[in-house]
Amino acid sequence: MTENFLLRTLELAQQRKGFCSPNPAVGSIVVHQGRIAGEGTHWAAGHAHAEVEALKEVPDSVARESTVYVSLEPCCHQGKTPPCTDLLIQKRVAKVVFSFEDPNPRVAGKGRAKLEASGIEVEHRPVVAIDAFYKSYRHWVEHRTPLVTVKLAMSLDAKVAGPGGKPVQITSPEMGRFSHLQRRNHDALLTSANTVLADNPRLNVRLEETLSKPVVVLDRLGRTPADAQIFTTAQSVTLLMGMDAPRERRERLAATGAQIHILETPQGCLSLPGVLAQLGGMGFHEVWVETGPALFAAFLKQRLAHKAYLYIAPILIGEGFPAFGEGLSELFAGGAMSWEPQGRDVCLQVVW
Amino acid sequence: MTENFLLRTLELAQQRKGFCSPNPAVGSIVVHQGRIAGEGTHWAAGHAHAEVEALKEVPDSVARESTVYVSLEPCCHQGKTPPCTDLLIQKRVAKVVFSFEDPNPRVAGKGRAKLEASGIEVEHRPVVAIDAFYKSYRHWVEHRTPLVTVKLAMSLDAKVAGPGGKPVQITSPEMGRFSHLQRRNHDALLTSANTVLADNPRLNVRLEETLSKPVVVLDRLGRTPADAQIFTTAQSVTLLMGMDAPRERRERLAATGAQIHILETPQGCLSLPGVLAQLGGMGFHEVWVETGPALFAAFLKQRLAHKAYLYIAPILIGEGFPAFGEGLSELFAGGAMSWEPQGRDVCLQVVW
Repeated sequence: MTENFLLRTLELAQQRKGFCSPNPAVGSIVVHQGRIAGEGTHWAAGHAHAEVEALKEVPDSVARESTVYVSLEPCCHQGKTPPCTDLLIQKRVAKVVFSFEDPNPRVAGKGRAKLEASGIEVEHRPVVAIDAFYKSYRHWVEHRTPLVTVKLAMSLDAKVAGPGGKPVQITSPEMGRFSHLQRRNHDALLTSANTVLADNPRLNVRLEETLSKPVVVLDRLGRTPADAQIFTTAQSVTLLMGMDAPRERRERLAATGAQIHILETPQGCLSLPGVLAQLGGMGFHEVWVETGPALFAAFLKQRLAHKAYLYIAPILIGEGFPAFGEGLSELFAGGAMSWEPQGRDVCLQVVW
Repeated sequence: MTENFLLRTLELAQQRKGFCSPNPAVGSIVVHQGRIAGEGTHWAAGHAHAEVEALKEVPDSVARESTVYVSLEPCCHQGKTPPCTDLLIQKRVAKVVFSFEDPNPRVAGKGRAKLEASGIEVEHRPVVAIDAFYKSYRHWVEHRTPLVTVKLAMSLDAKVAGPGGKPVQITSPEMGRFSHLQRRNHDALLTSANTVLADNPRLNVRLEETLSKPVVVLDRLGRTPADAQIFTTAQSVTLLMGMDAPRERRERLAATGAQIHILETPQGCLSLPGVLAQLGGMGFHEVWVETGPALFAAFLKQRLAHKAYLYIAPILIGEGFPAFGEGLSELFAGGAMSWEPQGRDVCLQVVW
């Protein structure tokens, strides 16, 4: 039962994956006499934590006889909200079971110790699926950079667009839905000024409901048009520019309300490690990259992506813009590969 | 039970699919008191038919009380072997159940009528899987041409070979096994002199055992080298040449023991409809085509293939020989597509 209860906390956490940064998504349930009496999910940074939400649903008399399950070790430090351990102690819950030990040095093991010191029984029960869920959080805590997933969609003849980069509808609705699920589950979406100029994408999540996400644009020279769709469809737009971006462009784009960060351009272009450090500093654990073939290849060549998706649609474009340039034979080297049909298309997943 | 018994006859027939041309593969069982008392498979043209093989396993006294199940309507004409209906009548079997009505006008409905005229109960029970199994036989009876399956293997960047056509190992062992299963199930393998010159393939079946198949080479000018591997690995080699093949080449190749047929070359090249008529005349119901991209595309553009397999290996070749030329955007139009992962690779199947 313990594992089933923890898997329920994972389900609750998954509902908000991609919306809690810089916090991880967390789920919690209160179990009284073997039955779930309360459930809670951390909604977003600044909102109540999952344990707090779950305990809200339960009278104090029940809480005292209950076990609180939580996907992540309860926090013991004052952040934007008070420490969860305090509430658990105040409610005098019978037991706390958590799955993933918080790698944040301000919490790691200390949340547990604080609960035990106050006489609450605590069980740490790792679960493989929950460990996987917090992979990006751990990576971010350890490296202060996000995990990066890149995707590229192409035809059977390895083209991503028509002649001169003319946009072509490549993937099917099913594959599109997969992309939107991915967008939803990532903390931020990364694109490039080239992609904005070529496709003018909305870069929001269009599933049963439409959701907006933080969008970050690699735009060394400030070429993003001030009337691009992202300025109305994104939750926020951040433009990463080089020192050499003309001032008038910076000012014009700043007027859209976008955040602008100026990064160094060591070889005359934005360095991807510098970009990732910036994204990590913004609190993103996991970033979804939707760009053209050049940036797709750059992330892979520099070994900065932890996952790549290559969508292949069973169409032939003929003369068009190639998905792969020269000298890329090792692009996917060392990755674990798997194929998954998605509607009419197929998706190659490569994980490092 | 009837359908299960018929599916068993299908299993028996499948064991010899690809080895019976110009006959179809057939399986038969003798069922006595609800249990299988004898099983038979048609081994190859000139060998006993399946019903004969099955009845051999059963004493006459049992045969009289048995139902004979057979995947195809029993033949009633003298071919290389005597009519099966005669044996069934002579053995005075109680009942005959067959699944696929023989489209051969010398048999169609007449096998059944002959049995019934002699007092044997006959049931015709169509089964979807058995109808599908005899699709190529029916096509051949109706058109005197084979069904054609073409395959091409390429990399993610849509290359089939290295620079200058240099052979590259593209597909994985699992995908290779799939090819060998396909080779086994087809009556003949079709290739081109270009492929023989480039790859010098063996074009046999290498599974648990090694089996040889009839190999047909499109070789307008007689360029197949007389020391090509196929001359030792194929069951038979047939070269389809044009009128313009130099006589000395024809004579040199005839000396290998190969069959040589001279076809017309209406536009300066072998016509594929002419090739298919020739293959049909040779008694092949189903032909597996392993060639390069040009012939792959030619079969599809001329709408002469009923099935195409495109293998995609998750590798990048870079500079190399392209899988698709120009003007092929409609190559797979109208086909029903499906993807199947095969080991490291994926296979796109297109059926018309």
